[in-house]
Amino acid sequence: VARTLKLVLEYDGTAYVGWERQKNGLAIQEVLEEAFWTIAGERVVVEGSGRTDAGVHALGQAASVVVERPLDLRKLRLGLNAVLPPDVSVISIDEAEAGFHARKSAKSKLYRYTILNDPARRPLWRHRAYHFPQPLDVSAMDEAARALEGTHDFTAFAREADRKKSCVRTILSAKVRAEPPFVHVELEGTGFLYNMVRIVTGTLIDVGLGKRAPADLARLIAQRSRAESGFTVPAHGLALVVVRYESAPAAPI
Amino acid sequence: VARTLKLVLEYDGTAYVGWERQKNGLAIQEVLEEAFWTIAGERVVVEGSGRTDAGVHALGQAASVVVERPLDLRKLRLGLNAVLPPDVSVISIDEAEAGFHARKSAKSKLYRYTILNDPARRPLWRHRAYHFPQPLDVSAMDEAARALEGTHDFTAFAREADRKKSCVRTILSAKVRAEPPFVHVELEGTGFLYNMVRIVTGTLIDVGLGKRAPADLARLIAQRSRAESGFTVPAHGLALVVVRYESAPAAPI
Repeated sequence: VARTLKLVLEYDGTAYVGWERQKNGLAIQEVLEEAFWTIAGERVVVEGSGRTDAGVHALGQAASVVVERPLDLRKLRLGLNAVLPPDVSVISIDEAEAGFHARKSAKSKLYRYTILNDPARRPLWRHRAYHFPQPLDVSAMDEAARALEGTHDFTAFAREADRKKSCVRTILSAKVRAEPPFVHVELEGTGFLYNMVRIVTGTLIDVGLGKRAPADLARLIAQRSRAESGFTVPAHGLALVVVRYESAPAAPI
Repeated sequence: VARTLKLVLEYDGTAYVGWERQKNGLAIQEVLEEAFWTIAGERVVVEGSGRTDAGVHALGQAASVVVERPLDLRKLRLGLNAVLPPDVSVISIDEAEAGFHARKSAKSKLYRYTILNDPARRPLWRHRAYHFPQPLDVSAMDEAARALEGTHDFTAFAREADRKKSCVRTILSAKVRAEPPFVHVELEGTGFLYNMVRIVTGTLIDVGLGKRAPADLARLIAQRSRAESGFTVPAHGLALVVVRYESAPAAPI
């Protein structure tokens, strides 16, 4: 009897081309499917909640898989973690209802971009936070971020290749908070464009430096011009924190 | 005119033989002295607050150095960080009074040992926390740890080679606290024996498993037998958090 399982995963994306299988290197999806083959003896497709890009981390990526054999879920988790590389781990496996799909069933995803905002590097965070030494005005950044909340055409924060398709997405919550020496940009949304969180963060850094006013974000969204928005910050500061399937927080009005 | 400087350092100890120069690999002290030579053009001795062992990290190691040339301290920090490897960073440099010595002037040091106490590994913490999957009773561990506070002969927690010298040390504070999925063992003291925090942590893990009663710690200290205490947990869970030079917290009565 086929069973649908929901997995929650943590990974260090440093060594990977991202979640999705690519020709130019190793993908997280690939090492998970290999681990299933080794432990469960089944060729399965592991569906993620969405792609994470090369070098991006996950604290709580979600995935779904349909298995045919009767498997003890605790033993399956222990077995998978025994054969997975040290930079990928299965945090939990639970039985899901038939038809559950990590991407299609997802209500929202929360991404966090971490900036180390201090003159000095922090070696223990070098793979997890983007070092930006100039002081940032976090409350201006937070004020600016609120303009992202709601349903908008985010062409201004889309890379070239994606600007022909619809760039309309819904952001449920956009916040910037200080946790010295770190500044976290947190976006929760029902969907994201490729590189969107990283272009938004680069634009918010301009606000934090006083190069742009907080009100600029609304103008940028309205103008729909990538050329007007900020730089793309590097991948290693980004992490997919959690994927929600039940109740997403109330959308702002 | 000679000036004495106080440095605060963060490092990822994974790739090093420890703070102190060794024949079998690279030491933190060594890379700092090389960086001083490159940037300041002076052959200096960088004195640490104490040794950290191979693989042990520091969030706030302190060091002192006497320099002859007039140096702008901000530029010196920037220069050192530009040439230091990515796993070592100078967080701050301040002028200290003549005679300041990172080890001799230190009032206390705080060490933290981090246990990942969860069935599943956490890839993003694999170099920072010791994975111990069986559930631990943190309040029993904390109760047990309190017996370490005060001035005692810690022979029970000393490695063979150190048992001929005095093993009397003063622990100002010993606490165990949960921050799920982590358990932190925090010891602040005026001095530590080699491997002491790691043997204490191994012994407290036995208490957390219910294999020993919390009252056992006082008995172990009194017995002064290494054979009776617990295993030495691995180095990668340990970090030197801060070195205090001004007022240490009041010693418990």
